[in-house]
Amino acid sequence: MHTHDLVVIGAGSGNMVVDDRFADLDVAIVDDRKFGGTCVNYGCIPSKMLSYTAQVADTVATADRFGVDAGNPRMRWPDVRDRVFGRTDDVAARGEQGRRESDFITVHHGTARFTAPYRLEIATEDGPVEIGAERIVIAAGSRPVVPEAVTASGLPYETSDTVMRRDDAPDHLAVLGGGYIAAELAHVFAAAGSRITIVEKSGRLLGGPQDDAVRQVYTDLMRGSYDVRCGSEVVGISGRPGDLIIDLDDGSTIRADALLVAAGRRSNSDRLEVGAAGIATHDDGRIRVDRHCRTSVDGVFAVGDVSTPIPLKHVANREAAVVTHNLLHPDDLREIRHDLVPSAVFTNPQIASIGRTEEDCRREQSDYRVGIAEYPDVAYGWAMETTVGLCKVLAEPDGTILGAHIIGAQAASLIQIFVVAMNFGIPAQELAHRPYWIHPALGEIVENALLNLQESAS
Amino acid sequence: MHTHDLVVIGAGSGNMVVDDRFADLDVAIVDDRKFGGTCVNYGCIPSKMLSYTAQVADTVATADRFGVDAGNPRMRWPDVRDRVFGRTDDVAARGEQGRRESDFITVHHGTARFTAPYRLEIATEDGPVEIGAERIVIAAGSRPVVPEAVTASGLPYETSDTVMRRDDAPDHLAVLGGGYIAAELAHVFAAAGSRITIVEKSGRLLGGPQDDAVRQVYTDLMRGSYDVRCGSEVVGISGRPGDLIIDLDDGSTIRADALLVAAGRRSNSDRLEVGAAGIATHDDGRIRVDRHCRTSVDGVFAVGDVSTPIPLKHVANREAAVVTHNLLHPDDLREIRHDLVPSAVFTNPQIASIGRTEEDCRREQSDYRVGIAEYPDVAYGWAMETTVGLCKVLAEPDGTILGAHIIGAQAASLIQIFVVAMNFGIPAQELAHRPYWIHPALGEIVENALLNLQESAS
Repeated sequence: MHTHDLVVIGAGSGNMVVDDRFADLDVAIVDDRKFGGTCVNYGCIPSKMLSYTAQVADTVATADRFGVDAGNPRMRWPDVRDRVFGRTDDVAARGEQGRRESDFITVHHGTARFTAPYRLEIATEDGPVEIGAERIVIAAGSRPVVPEAVTASGLPYETSDTVMRRDDAPDHLAVLGGGYIAAELAHVFAAAGSRITIVEKSGRLLGGPQDDAVRQVYTDLMRGSYDVRCGSEVVGISGRPGDLIIDLDDGSTIRADALLVAAGRRSNSDRLEVGAAGIATHDDGRIRVDRHCRTSVDGVFAVGDVSTPIPLKHVANREAAVVTHNLLHPDDLREIRHDLVPSAVFTNPQIASIGRTEEDCRREQSDYRVGIAEYPDVAYGWAMETTVGLCKVLAEPDGTILGAHIIGAQAASLIQIFVVAMNFGIPAQELAHRPYWIHPALGEIVENALLNLQESAS
Repeated sequence: MHTHDLVVIGAGSGNMVVDDRFADLDVAIVDDRKFGGTCVNYGCIPSKMLSYTAQVADTVATADRFGVDAGNPRMRWPDVRDRVFGRTDDVAARGEQGRRESDFITVHHGTARFTAPYRLEIATEDGPVEIGAERIVIAAGSRPVVPEAVTASGLPYETSDTVMRRDDAPDHLAVLGGGYIAAELAHVFAAAGSRITIVEKSGRLLGGPQDDAVRQVYTDLMRGSYDVRCGSEVVGISGRPGDLIIDLDDGSTIRADALLVAAGRRSNSDRLEVGAAGIATHDDGRIRVDRHCRTSVDGVFAVGDVSTPIPLKHVANREAAVVTHNLLHPDDLREIRHDLVPSAVFTNPQIASIGRTEEDCRREQSDYRVGIAEYPDVAYGWAMETTVGLCKVLAEPDGTILGAHIIGAQAASLIQIFVVAMNFGIPAQELAHRPYWIHPALGEIVENALLNLQESAS
């Protein structure tokens, strides 16, 4: 058994932990998939490249309403897929190559599992390899959860890992789940020409950090484009590959060419068998970590989806930076902050969020104010012929901003104004009045929501 | 002669001065054009509605590069024009009607000029009307400057007042001037199918608050789409309407169907004959005002393009609010701030700016730092298949942000992050590191520019 100085399990966010400051160590990076992890290969990057492409197709499809003649859009799916994954596969390959050419890094391609504290066995193409280290970073990510009703059928299904690399856009795609991954991929395949049916067990699409007002706007909009089955669960699947019959608990059925399962994700800690190393986990499988990203075992850190409470890439990046620092400076540990984490859903329209929802406020605040501005009421909303969309801000009576929620064009950019304001404690009334807001830019939706907040406070 | 309590000259930003708090006064509003002023009728709103429509056409035209088949876009110009001005004309008409129905406001439709201090003559359809008031708000706006070489020809020309309402998009539009109005309207007509030639006397397109790096990127890009004649001036025009021969000072000629003059604007103070009222002006014709928007004559205020150093609607709005307050609270005067005014150019790509350019810094700062990030290097830039565009930030060595300049998608929204940071004194390094920046959203271009600044500072 070879003993490294540092083993990193996971070539996604884990790969970011290691830089030249570790060059005097014997470092190993272990993964059984492509370098770059979920973000580059199965998540953020390809999904955003596809969602922007879908937005291009949407723009073509709606050009007539602006007085611009265009043909009906036809997405050449194989070309789109090849453009996207040609780029990401290249990034992944160059990432791995750079590590393989490094003097101080060994790349083990295979599936790791703990056999004892500080000991791992890697199942490689050439058989099992045993390695050990006193310092380990676990960044093994997460994977889609697939309900029993799906696996029991023995019929094929897609997840976010596979669906973006399909050879075709199915005529009819059933989507199991109504969260942000389901929403983004439904948009992509709708623009690629698929008919979409969404099956979501709760009463509205999108969960997580989204305010009910945003969920309602989005769900209503999607009912115009998709067959949305809220309050439903899949109880069984029959038929054959390419012609699935999906039974729901309300007695209805869906006949679809393909099924995308996007019903949540879980930590890969179980596959790593972290219990064998004495590493504690939460009930949901996430590895337990403290504010310094340390697990329950000395010298073992964890970052990203395998452990984080907020499985977003910008959070994993910060965690990776914290772990890098803490490995290099064990006597001067940094902390990770999990408050004020914004998120965005790259659908059409976009959705973005920071801080508390109104439901949170109702539960947690004795008093709060709400300010809402509608996209159709700002000048740039006119330019975009926008009929729906809003910015909602929540604040304490003294103006302390509690949360903000946007559904509409450029939401993922506009929310960043609130992110900055909340991080630096800028009160709502000062944010509204002190800076100039460019007329007629979309920032006016932020300004107006803040101004409306003041009015309701007076 | 009727003596009002308050006369407002100009139904654009001036119209915003008057609200129900003035209901106990006898108020007159005078204008010879549509209510809403330049912004609603000839400027911001129609130009942005048209520029977004042009962006739709651009997206259709470039859809193929994303793998989306679409026909060649054809803008149905009369439909586009009617949609835009149908909306703005309605806004203007409703604005005027509301004022005419008011109990305390008299609307005088006609051209006003001062005959003495506190006295005006209005040339109306029914002949001259004389009015007076001890309190006057001058908000008479500005108009395009037309060079002698153009007027002397006696041949027709367009300005921003007229070109957007044309019956057709000319086959070949010559644009005199390379500033932001020229840039926006050139983009609109290029997307509508016009061939564009731009004649600009300086060496690069765009002037004003734009950093040289942005001007260079924009000029290089436009050379790919337009015939750009920088360093040239028009010396004479011949031919006939619809077939103009435009002579430049370098001896070359342009043969064009139409000429758009967008070579700057001047205050309308001269048409008002403000000298007859003893109201002082700057050499460029702008009415002199103090920080409270007061002219040199007691009781007479001025707002907007007729007087402001920064002729942008978001500045005029603030000036109008200051004048409203100062009319109502003469013993508690508010001041207008003309620092930290952002601006945007709604071309494709967009351009936005706040604070100092690098040229300003070179002149004014003993030491400064530059941080640049390129659109093609951020993940959302990949999604957009962006090949050009940048965010440039300038800061003092201690991190105080001096200016920021963006050319690329959503620039007008993204710049607002810098506007907020600069207004609240957030240092560059804290702005980079404290807030989470959503991955992979366009805000990463701001984050990266800030991070690059730090590197160059170390």
